[in-house]
Amino acid sequence: MNEADFIAALRALPLHSAARGLADDCAVLMVGGETLVLTHDMMVEGTHFREGADMADVAWKLVTTNLSDLAAKGAEPVGVLLGHMLGSDDALFIKGLHEALRAFATPLLGGDTVAGKGLRCFGLTAIGRASHTQVPSRSGAAAGEGVWITGPVGRAMLGFEGASDHLAAFNRPVPRLAEGRALAPHVTAMMDISDGLLLDAWRMADASGVTFALDPVAIPVADPARADDCMRWGDDYELLFTAPADTALPVPAHRIGTVTARGEAPLQLGSTMLRASDRLGYRHG
Amino acid sequence: MNEADFIAALRALPLHSAARGLADDCAVLMVGGETLVLTHDMMVEGTHFREGADMADVAWKLVTTNLSDLAAKGAEPVGVLLGHMLGSDDALFIKGLHEALRAFATPLLGGDTVAGKGLRCFGLTAIGRASHTQVPSRSGAAAGEGVWITGPVGRAMLGFEGASDHLAAFNRPVPRLAEGRALAPHVTAMMDISDGLLLDAWRMADASGVTFALDPVAIPVADPARADDCMRWGDDYELLFTAPADTALPVPAHRIGTVTARGEAPLQLGSTMLRASDRLGYRHG
Repeated sequence: MNEADFIAALRALPLHSAARGLADDCAVLMVGGETLVLTHDMMVEGTHFREGADMADVAWKLVTTNLSDLAAKGAEPVGVLLGHMLGSDDALFIKGLHEALRAFATPLLGGDTVAGKGLRCFGLTAIGRASHTQVPSRSGAAAGEGVWITGPVGRAMLGFEGASDHLAAFNRPVPRLAEGRALAPHVTAMMDISDGLLLDAWRMADASGVTFALDPVAIPVADPARADDCMRWGDDYELLFTAPADTALPVPAHRIGTVTARGEAPLQLGSTMLRASDRLGYRHG
Repeated sequence: MNEADFIAALRALPLHSAARGLADDCAVLMVGGETLVLTHDMMVEGTHFREGADMADVAWKLVTTNLSDLAAKGAEPVGVLLGHMLGSDDALFIKGLHEALRAFATPLLGGDTVAGKGLRCFGLTAIGRASHTQVPSRSGAAAGEGVWITGPVGRAMLGFEGASDHLAAFNRPVPRLAEGRALAPHVTAMMDISDGLLLDAWRMADASGVTFALDPVAIPVADPARADDCMRWGDDYELLFTAPADTALPVPAHRIGTVTARGEAPLQLGSTMLRASDRLGYRHG
């Protein structure tokens, strides 16, 4: 099974209504009048980080990629559960974990520590409290609305390639928690751009049953000479969202396109129709 | 770092009050007037299951070992988040997952699916709702109380060794959810016996600052000729608990000893003082 087959098989299991049909990045669970947002991401050596990667960076990224999912829901972090496989550089892992928890005022709730013989594997469950209900999903974009992103894409790509100005963007991403909370009451759909702008925009448009017509010139990219790569690379963790076109946004953002009724394809980049999501960005599996 | 060092380092990080100082198997989180119980366990190939293990059994055990932690808190399952590394026999994994979720009326909330090149690694976060507050901990046992277990130990050991009558005990453990809910209002301390009766009893007595005086003849074991092995092997998932000696218990259980003021050691088995927890049971790390 590949990832898509596996997720399709999971959809046939008993799902909680909070799971949103496994079509979103988080579960949204009502508990005693409050709304919790739950997400779990794994990071595996050789897939999500290179062998020999700085374990402080790995721990930072494990925390912040999960918090980025909370940000896209306008949620504030309550705490995290850590799944940790022991190995080399565990003191560095603790250091990076501490830095991330402190930076985003997120305490540790618990977890599990295990021994393992192979490549390292870590998991993190982040729990947040929604600051605004209805909690944004991927599927609420409607024709006539605008499409925005909170910042440029491609910085993580340049950092991965070794550009010193952008190393932090790759190794130490910053979840847009404050922006997500400020935007949540205004947006009709929101997600973080973890797998690349074009792929994530395609997915949001597809989930919403509309077309996103993006203006390539309006998309802020870290390296204009490689605009296409910047739009396809992931790991940037800016927020992608839609809102009525005349919305007075509470935070700075870049208008990159317009939502239209569903046309030939979920995504249109300039005059190019992007029918399939293959090769638009990063895919696990 | 070994497991103990790593957990000690985690304790120096910002902890949520719900984390109970990382001294318990679950976090206990108050949300909007309700009490949630949260736990996360990982299973790694070569450590927690053998290469070539039936993936349906692995998935079952991933769910049920986490639900066993909820059982020890008297919590009823709300749902689970799955961290899954793709690999061989994923259809079997789905089958076992489905069987476990159905058997214990636990829906899927979400999770993550990743690719990996090495040994398989899975994680599961289980979320439960406490049926009784105060939620039992490990640390509430007091002198004069009785010590009980809900069933015999050693069945999983015999199943691991291939005894056909006990294969299910090893491959398909059953969390004592109903027993845990029934017992929660009556117990002063409770935990599941995942790492072996003697080690877990030592830990509970140590956390409570008391001594457990256990009567070896009273401990129900699956193979009386190997009573000592049965008390040290893990994976049985019966509940170990303490309560006032005259408590009318709501479920059948075996009285195996008495809580006394802290003596020379946390654990006394017959006339033997067990001062250190080394070699009492199964340790990860």
